[in-house]
Amino acid sequence: MENRFAFARDLVYQAGAYLLDHQDHCFKVETKSGPTDLVTQLDQEVQDFLVERILARYPQDGILAEEKGLRHQIDQGPVWIIDPIDGTTNFVTQRRDYAIMLAYFEDGVGQFGIIYDVSRGEIYHGGGRFDVYCNEKKLPPFQNKPLSDFLLAANAGMLESNHWGVADLAKETLGVRVYGSAGISFSKVLSGQLLTYLSYIWPWDYAAAAVMGEKLGYCLLTFDGERPDFQTRQGVIMLPKEKISEFKNYIKKED
Amino acid sequence: MENRFAFARDLVYQAGAYLLDHQDHCFKVETKSGPTDLVTQLDQEVQDFLVERILARYPQDGILAEEKGLRHQIDQGPVWIIDPIDGTTNFVTQRRDYAIMLAYFEDGVGQFGIIYDVSRGEIYHGGGRFDVYCNEKKLPPFQNKPLSDFLLAANAGMLESNHWGVADLAKETLGVRVYGSAGISFSKVLSGQLLTYLSYIWPWDYAAAAVMGEKLGYCLLTFDGERPDFQTRQGVIMLPKEKISEFKNYIKKED
Repeated sequence: MENRFAFARDLVYQAGAYLLDHQDHCFKVETKSGPTDLVTQLDQEVQDFLVERILARYPQDGILAEEKGLRHQIDQGPVWIIDPIDGTTNFVTQRRDYAIMLAYFEDGVGQFGIIYDVSRGEIYHGGGRFDVYCNEKKLPPFQNKPLSDFLLAANAGMLESNHWGVADLAKETLGVRVYGSAGISFSKVLSGQLLTYLSYIWPWDYAAAAVMGEKLGYCLLTFDGERPDFQTRQGVIMLPKEKISEFKNYIKKED
Repeated sequence: MENRFAFARDLVYQAGAYLLDHQDHCFKVETKSGPTDLVTQLDQEVQDFLVERILARYPQDGILAEEKGLRHQIDQGPVWIIDPIDGTTNFVTQRRDYAIMLAYFEDGVGQFGIIYDVSRGEIYHGGGRFDVYCNEKKLPPFQNKPLSDFLLAANAGMLESNHWGVADLAKETLGVRVYGSAGISFSKVLSGQLLTYLSYIWPWDYAAAAVMGEKLGYCLLTFDGERPDFQTRQGVIMLPKEKISEFKNYIKKED
């Protein structure tokens, strides 16, 4: 597993270097599910880069990835979960607050996760049998404090409509932030900068964070309190295990 | 004026270095107007640092600053406007997304402004007779594109309540971000990463951005379409002058 982990980190660094090299050139931007759901030529190139190298080294492994419909089941053997650019809209308009994410599972059990905040040069990596680091700095487990000492991050739409009670929870805290990237938001939870992150996202958006979070005292749950299905888009929350009972006063499934 | 501008930039760099040196030490955090309005010992130390050095060099000048009630009128002679740490909650919980801001006015006319995003090491400076730069890179004026090609940033509370029609405007764009710092948000407008920023803020939160924005084709207005008063907390918006008529369809003063 050490070899796979080192291979994966090296690959993600290379993919980040590729993005930094190409981000100031002209590239094609298209829409997917709607006018605000962007995908670029670089999303596809970075995914191809990662998939090709993973399969060259581990030809039997499965791939679950954002672009091009690669949908290997998470519980079937060794599976790599790839988000080539998380926060594509930020990437297109700002060249910052976007992440490359990679996770590795065996028979449904997370072995390690990686979130690379390319514009800040910060790589979060670990989980499973590995401690979690931001670059060379080992991250401590969740440190309990009152809700009122924390910021949280959420999806803007959920906040506007107080969906699942997100705005009610936010009122108990120092406030809410909206970064437009699951990877960036989760990395701030893992490093203690945020209490929690709530959004309506896909498996490649949460897989890496779920594996690292587990190691640091967090759990990733749907708003029903279940493990996410690693197949569909779901409303999920990453929260400290110690805070589950407190959160239940605010976060409620809607009928 | 060149001497004052060079002096000011050097001072802001020094203040940033002070914060970086002291941010990992223990410091006192208190609340001001309410439980989520934080101020730290370092806000006060950085303001003292700036005020002392400005008055040592320019003993006749006035000071308008966030802490300690320094409230020189903007239209009376030479005035320095200081926000020692903008985004104090981000500073306390994240050590990032905070800014030191300094602006200089003469008889109510902005001469230059500085926003220093300390954690990213990016200093935005210029306005008046000076071109606007981010570090060594000269910023181009606003480049017109459809609303649907831009992100915007706003205050979370305004968004939740659709105050002044902010949420309606956001629906015409790629989406909304909430960074928790006026300085960080304005710096992203100045560099073309965001279309606009709307919030309910004080003169030290908007003075530097107003001066730099003017040079790049933006204007800073209250929701009544007036120039802000540089005295009280007001709802303000920095927007491209070319977009004023389009914005009027969405941004409305409430009764």
